[in-house]
Formats: sequence, C-alpha cells, structure tokens
Amino acid sequence: MNTQTRHSSVLTVRCPDRIGIVSAVATFLSQRGLSIEESDQFHDRGDGAFYMRVAFAGPLSADAIRADFAALGEPFAMDWTLQTLGVKPKIVVAVSRHGHCLSDLLHRWKTGWLGAEIAAVVSNHEDWRATCEWHGLPYHRLEVAPDKAAGEARILEVLSSTGSELLVLARYMQVLSPELVAQLTNRCINIHHSFLPSFKGARPYHQAHARGVKIIGATAHYVTQDLDEGPIIEQAVERVSHRDHPEALVEIGRDLECTVLARAVRWHAERRVLLAGQRTVVFR
Amino acid sequence: MNTQTRHSSVLTVRCPDRIGIVSAVATFLSQRGLSIEESDQFHDRGDGAFYMRVAFAGPLSADAIRADFAALGEPFAMDWTLQTLGVKPKIVVAVSRHGHCLSDLLHRWKTGWLGAEIAAVVSNHEDWRATCEWHGLPYHRLEVAPDKAAGEARILEVLSSTGSELLVLARYMQVLSPELVAQLTNRCINIHHSFLPSFKGARPYHQAHARGVKIIGATAHYVTQDLDEGPIIEQAVERVSHRDHPEALVEIGRDLECTVLARAVRWHAERRVLLAGQRTVVFR
Amino acid sequence: MNTQTRHSSVLTVRCPDRIGIVSAVATFLSQRGLSIEESDQFHDRGDGAFYMRVAFAGPLSADAIRADFAALGEPFAMDWTLQTLGVKPKIVVAVSRHGHCLSDLLHRWKTGWLGAEIAAVVSNHEDWRATCEWHGLPYHRLEVAPDKAAGEARILEVLSSTGSELLVLARYMQVLSPELVAQLTNRCINIHHSFLPSFKGARPYHQAHARGVKIIGATAHYVTQDLDEGPIIEQAVERVSHRDHPEALVEIGRDLECTVLARAVRWHAERRVLLAGQRTVVFR
Amino acid sequence: MNTQTRHSSVLTVRCPDRIGIVSAVATFLSQRGLSIEESDQFHDRGDGAFYMRVAFAGPLSADAIRADFAALGEPFAMDWTLQTLGVKPKIVVAVSRHGHCLSDLLHRWKTGWLGAEIAAVVSNHEDWRATCEWHGLPYHRLEVAPDKAAGEARILEVLSSTGSELLVLARYMQVLSPELVAQLTNRCINIHHSFLPSFKGARPYHQAHARGVKIIGATAHYVTQDLDEGPIIEQAVERVSHRDHPEALVEIGRDLECTVLARAVRWHAERRVLLAGQRTVVFR
Repeated sequence: MNTQTRHSSVLTVRCPDRIGIVSAVATFLSQRGLSIEESDQFHDRGDGAFYMRVAFAGPLSADAIRADFAALGEPFAMDWTLQTLGVKPKIVVAVSRHGHCLSDLLHRWKTGWLGAEIAAVVSNHEDWRATCEWHGLPYHRLEVAPDKAAGEARILEVLSSTGSELLVLARYMQVLSPELVAQLTNRCINIHHSFLPSFKGARPYHQAHARGVKIIGATAHYVTQDLDEGPIIEQAVERVSHRDHPEALVEIGRDLECTVLARAVRWHAERRVLLAGQRTVVFR
Repeated sequence: MNTQTRHSSVLTVRCPDRIGIVSAVATFLSQRGLSIEESDQFHDRGDGAFYMRVAFAGPLSADAIRADFAALGEPFAMDWTLQTLGVKPKIVVAVSRHGHCLSDLLHRWKTGWLGAEIAAVVSNHEDWRATCEWHGLPYHRLEVAPDKAAGEARILEVLSSTGSELLVLARYMQVLSPELVAQLTNRCINIHHSFLPSFKGARPYHQAHARGVKIIGATAHYVTQDLDEGPIIEQAVERVSHRDHPEALVEIGRDLECTVLARAVRWHAERRVLLAGQRTVVFR
Repeated sequence: MNTQTRHSSVLTVRCPDRIGIVSAVATFLSQRGLSIEESDQFHDRGDGAFYMRVAFAGPLSADAIRADFAALGEPFAMDWTLQTLGVKPKIVVAVSRHGHCLSDLLHRWKTGWLGAEIAAVVSNHEDWRATCEWHGLPYHRLEVAPDKAAGEARILEVLSSTGSELLVLARYMQVLSPELVAQLTNRCINIHHSFLPSFKGARPYHQAHARGVKIIGATAHYVTQDLDEGPIIEQAVERVSHRDHPEALVEIGRDLECTVLARAVRWHAERRVLLAGQRTVVFR
Repeated sequence: MNTQTRHSSVLTVRCPDRIGIVSAVATFLSQRGLSIEESDQFHDRGDGAFYMRVAFAGPLSADAIRADFAALGEPFAMDWTLQTLGVKPKIVVAVSRHGHCLSDLLHRWKTGWLGAEIAAVVSNHEDWRATCEWHGLPYHRLEVAPDKAAGEARILEVLSSTGSELLVLARYMQVLSPELVAQLTNRCINIHHSFLPSFKGARPYHQAHARGVKIIGATAHYVTQDLDEGPIIEQAVERVSHRDHPEALVEIGRDLECTVLARAVRWHAERRVLLAGQRTVVFR
C-alpha cells in the first residue's frame, strides 16, 4: 500500500454454475491490485446455481470498478452486487409492546456490533418512546386502526426519508399488508418466536407447550406474502422440559429471539445473505 | 442392611394434585425401611395434575408392598405403577432397510447400556438377518404385502411369545394399522427423522432442505392413531447450512436418530416417562 | 383458600441422606395446610448427601413456621433456609468498561424477568453512569488505585446500605482482595468468559483462539479465594470455526455471557442453587 | 462430457497470502476444462496465511496435472496436495476394551459413510476380535508389556503392509512412545473424552464431575508429543447436571465420542482438515 486511500468493498454473485467464473472474478480483482480478505463460494449441486461473496481491499473503490465488473458479469448472466464496506447501512426498527429485541438491538448498535445504523424506530404503541429518545433516536407512533394504510405509508416515509434500506420487525405484532410486503421484497426481516415451519401464526410458545416439544426455537426470515413462510436466515434452539409452562417458554425464547434477530440483521448488512429461491445461502 | 435381600423398585404416580400426596408416599416408604434413591415430582400448574417417580431400595420387594400401596393410592385417585428395578424389560425391534438405529441399539444392549433386553428383531427385509443372528437374536421376516394383517399378527405373536412389553420402530418404514396401534397403546415407540411437528410424513430431510431450515432434528415418540402426532419423549437437533444437500442432512440426522431413540427406550424402560395427555413428563 | 392471606415460601435443605427426611418435611407442610408447588430432591450417591428445594403456598408465612421447622431439622442435622417468595432479593452489580452484561441485566430487571432487584451499580469507570442514572439507579464510582481497600470498603457499604444480599460481577475486571472475598462467601457471582476450567485468567478468548478450540463458552460461578475456581452455577457454549479470529470470539461470547449470568442471578435469587462442596446442585 | 473418463480430485493449498493466488489456481483449472465442485478459502488475518481446498472434476486426473501444478505453486511457496477422490484412503483402528467408537466406525464403514476403508484393527486385548473377524477384518493383538516397542513395531507393520495412511486411536488407552508419534506426524487421530484443554489425562469424566461442570465434551485431535495437546479437529458437548454421577457422564459422553471421532476421520479422509500450526482449518 502506498499513500493512496485503501478502499474496502464486498461483491456478491449469483449465476448459473460453469467453468471459469471463479477464475474470471479472481483475475479481475488481482489485475487491479485488489486483495481478497474473505471469500466464500457455493456450488449448488441441486439446481446448478453458483453463489459467491468476496470481500476485498485495495486502491480502487466499489464505484470505480462497477462499470468494468458489469462487462465481466454479462456473459456469465451474473446477478451481482458491489458495495462499499465500512459505511454501515441504515435500518428502521418496528416494535410493538415486547421490547427485548429492540433493547438488544439498541445496545449492539450503540457499541458498534450491529453492522447497521438504526435510523428510527416505529411502533403502534408508546411504550418504548422514552428509551429510544434517550438514545437519540426518532420514534414514530403509527396509526394501525382503523386506517392501517396510513400507518404503513408512514413506515415507507420513514424508510425513505432516513435513507434506510431495511425494515426490521423486532416483535412487531402487526401483519403487513400485501402492498407493503411487495414494496419491501428482500428488505424486511422478521423474528418469529418458533422454530419454523413449526408453530406459525399466533402464540407459538403456547402451541409448543400444547404439543409437548422438548426443544423450542426462534427464526429470523425475510418477509414474503405468505405469513411466516419467507426464506429463513437464521434459527436457534434451546432445550426445555415438561416443567416449563408456556410463560417459561416465553422467557427462555426471548434470549433466542434477540440472538437470532441480531445475527440476521448483521449478516444482511454485511451482505452475507444471498437469496436462493425460498432458501438462503449464508456466508458466515 | 443386614442379611436380608435388598430389593430395588420404582414407583410412578399420576393423580390430581392436592395437599398430602408426597407426605403419604414418603411416609409409606419410610415406615417400611425403604430408602429413596431417586425422587422427582412435577406439579402441573396448568391442569392441576401431579406426577411422581420414586426409585427406592430396602428389605421389601415391589410385589410385597403392592397391596398396601393400592390402599394408599385409592383415596388420592392415583394412577400408579410399581415395578422391580434390575430385571430389564424385554423389547422387540422393528427395522426396514436402514440399520443405523438397529446397529446402535444392538451395541448398547450388548454392553448393558440400553436399560432393556432385546428379545427379537422383526423386519420386512432380510438385510439385517446376518447381523442379528450373529448377535444371537431371532430375526423374523414379516410379510407386509399383500397381506399386511399377517405381518402385524406376527409382530403381536413375537411380542407375546417373548414376553416383550415394547415395540421399537427403529426406522421401520411401514405405517402400522389402526388395529395394531390400538393394541400397542403406550407400548410402541417410533423414531421420526425430523424435529416434529415440522416435516411429518415421508422424506423429512428432503422437506427440510426444500424449506431451507438452518437446524435439523429427530424425534422419538409414542405411536398413536395420528401419524407422527404421538406424545414426544425426546428430541435432538444439529445445525446445518446451505452446503448440506439432502443426502448430507440424511447423514447428519442419523447420529441424532440413534441417540434420541436409545434415550427414549432407556427412559421408557426405567419408567422415567409418564404420559400427560398428548405430552410426556420425563424424569431424566 | 378462604379469606386468609396466602403466603408463598421456599425451603432449601441439605443434610446427610437417611430414611424419613422427605416424609418428615412433606408431612410438616401438609399438616399445616401448605401446598407444594415445586419440589426437587437430589440423593447424591457419591457422598451420601441429600438436597431438597420446596416451593409451597398456604395460610402460613415463612416466618410463622420457622421455629417449628428448626425443631424438625435438628435431628436430621439439616442445613436449611426458609424464605418468603415474592419479595425479590436486592443485588448490587459491579461493572468495568464492557457493558453488555449490565445492559442485559438492566433490561431483565426493568421487565421483571431477573428475579432480583438491582439496588445500585458500582464501577471503576464512568462509562455506564448515564445509562444507570437514566434507569434511576445510584451509580458509585470506585477508587481502585492506589487505594484498592477504599474501593472495596465502598462496595461493602453499598451492599449494606441498600440491604443487598448479592454482588454480581458483570465483567468487573478487578480481582477482589481475599478479605472482600471472605466477607462475600456465597454472596458474589462472577461471569468468566470461558468454558471453565479451560482458559482461566486474562484474555480467555485469545487463549481459546490460540488453542484452536471448536467451541467456546462462558461460566457463571461463585467467587472464592481461588481465581476462577469457585463452584460453577451455569455454563453455555457456542460452536466456532477457524474463521473466527479473537475479536469474533469476543463477539460470539457476549451473548453467552449475558444469558449465563442472568440465569445464575435468577436461580440464586429463587434459591435454586445449593452448594455441594466445590460443586452446585441447581434445581432449575 | 464426452466419451472421456471423468476424474474427481481434490486440491489443498497453504501458502503466504498475496494477491493472485485464487486467480492463478482458478485459471489453472478452468483452462484445463476442470469444473469446481466445492471450493473453500480462508485468509488468516492473524498471520497472513492462506488456505484453500478445491474439489473439481473433469477430463484430467490428479496425476495428469501434478507436474503442471507444481510449476504453478512454486512462486507462491505453496504447500499443496493433490489427490484422487473416490478411492477412499485406508486406515487402521486401535482399540482397547471400550468398543463403542470401534463399533460405530465399523457400522459407518460397512454402510459407506466413513469416507475411509478400515484395513485392520489392532488392540492390546482380545475383546473385539470376534466382532472384527465377523466383519472380515484382520485383528492384531499387540504386545504392550513388557515389550511396548514390539507392539508399536507391529502397528507400523500393519499400517505399512495394508497401505494405510492413518492410525485412529478409538479409545486405545495406551500412550504412544515419542518414537511412534514422530513417525505418525499428522497421521494419527485420537479421541479424548473431554472438552480439551479441560481435563487432560486419565479419567476425564471423573475430573469433570469433581469440578462440577454443567457441560461435558469430547475432542478429536492429531496426536503430538504433548499428551492431549495436539491440533483439535472437532469437538462436541452435551449439557449435564448435578444428577449425573461419573458413570452417567461416561454414558452421555460415549455418544459424543463416537460422533466426534467419526467426523474427524471422514474430514481427514476427504482432505477437509488443513494444519495451521497448533490449530486446524476445517473446510466442512
């Protein structure tokens, strides 16, 4: 490295697998003096798709190589993204009355571990206003009834005015309208308090208790039109026993929810999550 | 202990919770010089039921105190069992073509860790005959088509002629008839190769792959009329990733299946599993 | 229950095992109309000790039966405690610069899940003053150098003036003097950021990285004169890989530390932790 | 694919990290029509080393490209291996009296899941002769006292005469001499029945019980001159409680030992384990 600025960037690639992709990408970077810092690849034997994530650093910025990379990607039919690392993406957090995930996200954000910048919080309740405002965060109370559309318009406004790319549903107990979901494709992460696909819908810990499972879980996933059916980003589980009545499951589950949601947000922000149809490729 | 024989026994109790149960049972044992070696209780706040398991030892056998205990239990409306410890219950194992659970059960049996005696193996295939016979076990080939009833009659015959109390479905890929299930209530344990209630039915690892879950599991449960819906005894899980194609899930899952099934059999044999409606109380 | 007040209490017992203990305790409670809500027992085959925890409710308070229970316990050489449930015990939290455990404890306390009341926070730094004071908590800056004794005297003062029974070292990076440890026997819980007994002392995540372990952990334990050698209350672990450099281990470990410490504090507060020499009996 | 034979091979690379390595390797493969099926890389920020594993397939065999690859690797100071996939490497298993790991390895081998061919079993006892011979395996009784050297010479003979590359210590309770260890550098895997570095040496489950840990583990590692200090390949853990006396820990631990050892053998056989000083890089 000389006196030039050193840029850090991250590239993601998805395309049909064939001979020469890795060679082309790696040669592209090496010819420009860009050094690979992390690299992960996945050749899906099932459907013949190829996935790649490369973090690299060197004298050129993501913007400076974008046009060249487009030329490289074209013959491979690449679906690719190229972004600057270091500038954390902005997110908006939606919360209802249960604030454990919000509280956890706030602490990680403040200490720099979230991988993203929280730009605002939206809620259908006032419960967490004081906490958020103490942290210097705008807190927007949403109208959800009778005019749900107004509340949802407000969410889009807040996302747009803050330049946020992601909406994080941190135990936001409202179902989003199909219209909002459509506008937030791959831009909205939800935490569901069960080990999906078990126990979709309401009161999953009570469902889990009734079924008598010996292990409970939490799932972070992208929101799609099908409730609790979107691509899973991360899951975690904890052993329970007959002694754990539903309230105990709620309590045990909270730690899982916090950990799982925070991981999903960070991995998304660091471009570690690539969509693979209804599944995800997560390059941890 | 003097020159008398020392007997080991185990008592299980299920009844409506009320003041005085533990006192009555503990006093009963202590007055007879029976010393408690393990004791577990569960007061279910949800439905007001009480569950208890006591392993004890002393000068009197289970048989010697049975009549007295019946008198004690009656006013409490106790559903109870009282059995000798030390004589391991006999079981019959049913297997199809995948022999990993069978192989694991055989090893645990031979080394004394299973908590039960395998009395015979039944199968709709010949694959595991040589292995079983080398272990000195009778191996019964079952007819399953066209005359499924004949095969099932044979299972009951083998259970009865060997004095076995439990049928263990160790990846036996046939669905039992409602008639057989009815005759084996709480006497038949199945291993299902998913983290139930997710992925019931056929090819659960392929279902899990298609859904993109990040954790897979296995479940041992009592067989009931509703396929894969019986009371769960034990579950275990393992983390997987996008790299794990369905065959890899099959491979990772095998270890889970072996461990979970062996635990369920041992806990059942040691009277650690009490039924609680559609759930189980497991005093590990 | 009639118009009388209903009291909830918890009893713990430790004594040499012999016939009649459970009977005596259960009869004592039942004769007074006290109904058992949770009961756990452990007969240690190794050293012949007996451990018991009973949560019960009824017309008499813990204080009202204390004298009677003393008479019962005497012939059994019982080491016992009898306490009111419902009044949460007070604790003081000590923190240094890393605030993740403190932040987690504060959230659990505020939402009622901690099982204890935080009465004050002490620290050798100012970092967390604003946060604590915003939560309405007294924050005491401790002098640790050159006059460590003054700082430690202050800790005792705060414990005493707030009526707190427990000091929680939530990543408090100072080693306590033998004198302070002696005064806080079984009243001081520490979180150590390794899977003890591996990696005692400083920078355990760096030690773990250097050794190349594939799983890391965190341990909550009572503080004794031997650094990181006190009785373990709880541990948790997480899988890591060669990709996780020491800073990544630090990050992964934080979630473990929070969960493990919070459990230890709650279990201690609910009298679920009984000492068994250098080990603990934890009735979860 | 034309009428040519299709070869499958695996390449591992370790060298100082610098720009151009991935490009050179990927271009080498793509120019020869070799298609990448699995690829993993690791850039160690700590010491600037680079690790890579590539499984590929195409018209050329590993042997056919070896000379060319040597020319490529030289300027990068690569430490590399290039091997045919599909021919499973041969291994020798050493066992003492506890046969659970042996039994598990036999089952995986027979069903094709081990990734390696067991060529022979050596032991200082006769316990497992019948089992091994029933599986068609040569079983060599080793003399270990008074002439330990003779026994060890026999091990080397068996390895050499069977063309085996790896010695697997499947609960072989003898300490190998420094001379033997020196001859088996990176060719000998041991299973230790604790979560190393905790509880090295004898009776680790008893040590774990005495320390009162809440989680136990097992560790597979390469054998080096320092007992239980070699590079760790894999570890697994299971939660235990105060109820688990040392014999219960032994029993719980057996499942961990089987799983961990089998994984280590398979990963080694599939060239997924690269040495990184005292640590390993494991490309799962």
